[in-house]
Amino acid sequence: MSKELEKELILMGKNARKASQILTLANSDLKNSALEAMAVDIEKNKENILEANIKDVEKAKANNISKSFLDRLILNDERIKSISDGLREIIKIEDPVGQTMSKWDRPNGLNIERVRTPLGVIGVIYESRPNVTADAGALCLKAGNAVILRGGSESYYSSNAIYNSLKNGLIKAGLPEHSIQIIPTTDRNAVGYLLSGLNDSIDVVVPRGGKSLVERVQNEAKVPVFGHLEGICHVYIDKDADVKKAIEVTVNAKMRRTGICGAAETLLIDKENADIFLPKLAEALEGLDCELRGCNNSLKIIKDMIPAEENDWSTEYLDAIISIKIVDGIRGAIDHINSYSTSHTDSIITENIKTADIFLKEIDSAIVMHNASTQFADGGEFGMGAEIGIATGRFHARGPVGVEQLTSFKYVVRGSGQVRP
Amino acid sequence: MSKELEKELILMGKNARKASQILTLANSDLKNSALEAMAVDIEKNKENILEANIKDVEKAKANNISKSFLDRLILNDERIKSISDGLREIIKIEDPVGQTMSKWDRPNGLNIERVRTPLGVIGVIYESRPNVTADAGALCLKAGNAVILRGGSESYYSSNAIYNSLKNGLIKAGLPEHSIQIIPTTDRNAVGYLLSGLNDSIDVVVPRGGKSLVERVQNEAKVPVFGHLEGICHVYIDKDADVKKAIEVTVNAKMRRTGICGAAETLLIDKENADIFLPKLAEALEGLDCELRGCNNSLKIIKDMIPAEENDWSTEYLDAIISIKIVDGIRGAIDHINSYSTSHTDSIITENIKTADIFLKEIDSAIVMHNASTQFADGGEFGMGAEIGIATGRFHARGPVGVEQLTSFKYVVRGSGQVRP
Repeated sequence: MSKELEKELILMGKNARKASQILTLANSDLKNSALEAMAVDIEKNKENILEANIKDVEKAKANNISKSFLDRLILNDERIKSISDGLREIIKIEDPVGQTMSKWDRPNGLNIERVRTPLGVIGVIYESRPNVTADAGALCLKAGNAVILRGGSESYYSSNAIYNSLKNGLIKAGLPEHSIQIIPTTDRNAVGYLLSGLNDSIDVVVPRGGKSLVERVQNEAKVPVFGHLEGICHVYIDKDADVKKAIEVTVNAKMRRTGICGAAETLLIDKENADIFLPKLAEALEGLDCELRGCNNSLKIIKDMIPAEENDWSTEYLDAIISIKIVDGIRGAIDHINSYSTSHTDSIITENIKTADIFLKEIDSAIVMHNASTQFADGGEFGMGAEIGIATGRFHARGPVGVEQLTSFKYVVRGSGQVRP
Repeated sequence: MSKELEKELILMGKNARKASQILTLANSDLKNSALEAMAVDIEKNKENILEANIKDVEKAKANNISKSFLDRLILNDERIKSISDGLREIIKIEDPVGQTMSKWDRPNGLNIERVRTPLGVIGVIYESRPNVTADAGALCLKAGNAVILRGGSESYYSSNAIYNSLKNGLIKAGLPEHSIQIIPTTDRNAVGYLLSGLNDSIDVVVPRGGKSLVERVQNEAKVPVFGHLEGICHVYIDKDADVKKAIEVTVNAKMRRTGICGAAETLLIDKENADIFLPKLAEALEGLDCELRGCNNSLKIIKDMIPAEENDWSTEYLDAIISIKIVDGIRGAIDHINSYSTSHTDSIITENIKTADIFLKEIDSAIVMHNASTQFADGGEFGMGAEIGIATGRFHARGPVGVEQLTSFKYVVRGSGQVRP
């Protein structure tokens, strides 16, 4: 990396820290007026953003980029509207900064209050979707944080065009323009420096993208990371399951959208009722063109499935493919999940509350569910308004990372002259 | 580091992870019965522990170790009693695991609950105090975590003798003996490997000791760290302070115990009343043999102080020394603290609630106080029962790290067959 770029990144870090000190004290109205000004500016500059996007799309096509990748990259009127709508949704989310989390009195008369504060400076590294520029910038701002964005090189022009509107909104509202910054180069070395060279300036990094991006971030980051590598989500159909619910939930968990992290990848079925349940489940999934890969025991019931291999249990297909395993009851299900889980989201289908409670207690994932589709693993569905991603680590934020999870706290102690004996 | 030691450390990490999976599900009675059995075993083995301690003390004396260091190392009947008393205090702390942190219903009928879970495996690295072996082991266990301890080489025999009682307690209660492990060597390379080689097995590291230890841990750790490097705590005497409170609180904040992280290091005085307040404060502190180091303006009022130099504002004396600066009101105080703070604990003395509120809002430290001594920065004083240390990072735990801060959480979602539209 050039000395100039290093200097520039260091300066961005310092400016972000300064901005964050001002944002810590910014009230909700000010932050919301900036978000509204951003939404207005994006609508006003729609044509410029679309033009920039065409540049990215043409480059991507010339590079023979995949169809799904291209789909994530392309902007149109509707998608730009959804970006400004998204900003206005974030206005509606309650501002967590300054909220009292808990409060208690001590016998000596001291009153102790735990108050939410912003986290500080957040780095967000993302890939092809240009809308992440606005989503991530706005979510961080709402929680009083400064943010340094680094978009994918494929969406460079689109992201920068959207970023311009964010900056205009900040300036219009009178907030520091460095509250949201974007790294002004596609040089890949900049990512490395963001991850390991700016520890004093960045408090947390959020990777948004595929496995290889997240892997790189988790390996190289010298600061905490909010993210998840893979979402190998399981649905376990217990012997006491209601078969209609089991089918509906499984089909939804696998097929509603196959490319999201909360999509189910493995179906576990209790051996007690497998011969009754499995044919019905298989029929429902196959009816939607889902490929089934079964364990040896399940192949005895449904003969025309592809035999599952060992690595099927640890594969995130992100496609219309599901692995199926017959297990020995709730214990077998828990053993399998604990062996292959990526600690994301797992669901049990049963009418037996006791069995459900064992599953909910013993499965150590960010989200455990009873009689519900794993596709509900989402900040919006949890009522958080919006999320910057799902975290599977055990630190600070786990599960959907919304505005509240982008905060820290401090203790406020009020006394009347107390001294410690 | 030898291949054998590396192998042994890897095995310790794996065993800790296995133990933590069992501890996650251990109920409070079981954990408490282990803690009681540990306390009994320590009392029973008092003579062995004291003998081991003599070995450490003799070695330390031969190495010309400092008096304060020696004081922290020495065990006697009373100190051993306080170790077993400490274990019984931890029994009394409420078990956080399984507690519902919040709970809400979604319009689609899903019920979402945020439930506390253990963090996993904790590494604790400490120096001379052998009692940390029991304190840290017990606190981690109470929160359902496995722990790998690494005591200082100076307290090697004492820590191992205490550790034996912890292990006996675990075995007696029927908990995995690897729930608490201690690194069985004084090889310093083992610390490096603990910090950077066992990321898969250790979820968080807690350093307990002096600045050089904490610095090393923060620099080398590949996992999150709960700790603080320094506690440069400030007391600001506002023009609207009650002079009696100001004196009592300042004297206590500086002199109650000078060697703890919550001890005040810098006294800031509003210029408006400095000529009235400063002589009284100086007299009270000097009466207790506290050395005063004053800024230029304060030297005009008290002529016989040592002139403070620039680096006095960023020095943690941990001794009967205080730096004194006259500042321009609350804004001057906030500017000074924000420039030199280590984000630990800062206190304002004033009868003006509005001024206090500005201070409490704008000072970004783990603990901010109004009319109270900074020496209250302590988990016990906060009502947490006991603490493993104070954290000044903005992640996960901030301020005193008690049993509750040693937990994570998961989302439990209960439905009746909901699918996502």
